[in-house]
Amino acid sequence: MKLDFSVAVHSLLYLEEKSPEKVTSSKLADLMSINAVVIRNTLSLLHKKGYIKGTVGKNGGYILSQSFDDINVGDLYDLTIPPILSYARFITGDTDNHSIKDKAMAANMSESLTDLFTLADDHYREFYHQFTMMDLKRDLKHHGYFKALAEKKA
Amino acid sequence: MKLDFSVAVHSLLYLEEKSPEKVTSSKLADLMSINAVVIRNTLSLLHKKGYIKGTVGKNGGYILSQSFDDINVGDLYDLTIPPILSYARFITGDTDNHSIKDKAMAANMSESLTDLFTLADDHYREFYHQFTMMDLKRDLKHHGYFKALAEKKA
Repeated sequence: MKLDFSVAVHSLLYLEEKSPEKVTSSKLADLMSINAVVIRNTLSLLHKKGYIKGTVGKNGGYILSQSFDDINVGDLYDLTIPPILSYARFITGDTDNHSIKDKAMAANMSESLTDLFTLADDHYREFYHQFTMMDLKRDLKHHGYFKALAEKKA
Repeated sequence: MKLDFSVAVHSLLYLEEKSPEKVTSSKLADLMSINAVVIRNTLSLLHKKGYIKGTVGKNGGYILSQSFDDINVGDLYDLTIPPILSYARFITGDTDNHSIKDKAMAANMSESLTDLFTLADDHYREFYHQFTMMDLKRDLKHHGYFKALAEKKA
């Protein structure tokens, strides 16, 4: 879900802006108008990977623990949206009631499309890996930074 | 939906195999174990774009009208899965109840992520545009063709 990725990015941007102030998960939930459970799941992932540090109890909260130059956008994408190919979604043709030749075509097609979709997804993720959170912050301040980079490469 | 793309690919492969024999939409529906309405929608798209020719009535059916070398897999992907970015899915933070600064961050983030996701989707689609249906048929016969091509480029 793209939303989990947005929550991660939004949380990091906010922690960076407030740094060195601590920010609570309920503050982030309120900021994004998102259910606190969703926020806490994402913060837990960011915490596990060492992007943020958290303290509990009174005056608890999260702070950013890595520089934006060191946080790769593709890593955040992979963390919040793990690559899972749902095979059932694109399989056409079952293995019963058909001729051996037709069954073979369906089976071979599933195998080829699985490869094709998997490789396309890898290619897709590479796109995000080009950028750090610092790039994202640049685009936030001056929209068009991503577009200009993409055009330069094309 | 990836399924629409699979249906298009499976239909073309089957028409090519049966050529010059005509194939009915109900035969294709049975072959893929897919609802006939889904099949007919996809065949209608393929027909509009001139990939297949159809005749109605008794002994009616579809035949392939282009060579596999001339049918681009990326064009089929764009045809069956048009690029539509669902903004609502990744927007965090509304425009009420928050400070001007927080609202600006949320608005800027929506704009930057829209650009990022749109460019990533363009990049994703480029992957499919590298291949023709002839390449797909090659991979069907000798699995690993796509993988080998991707590795060569990496």
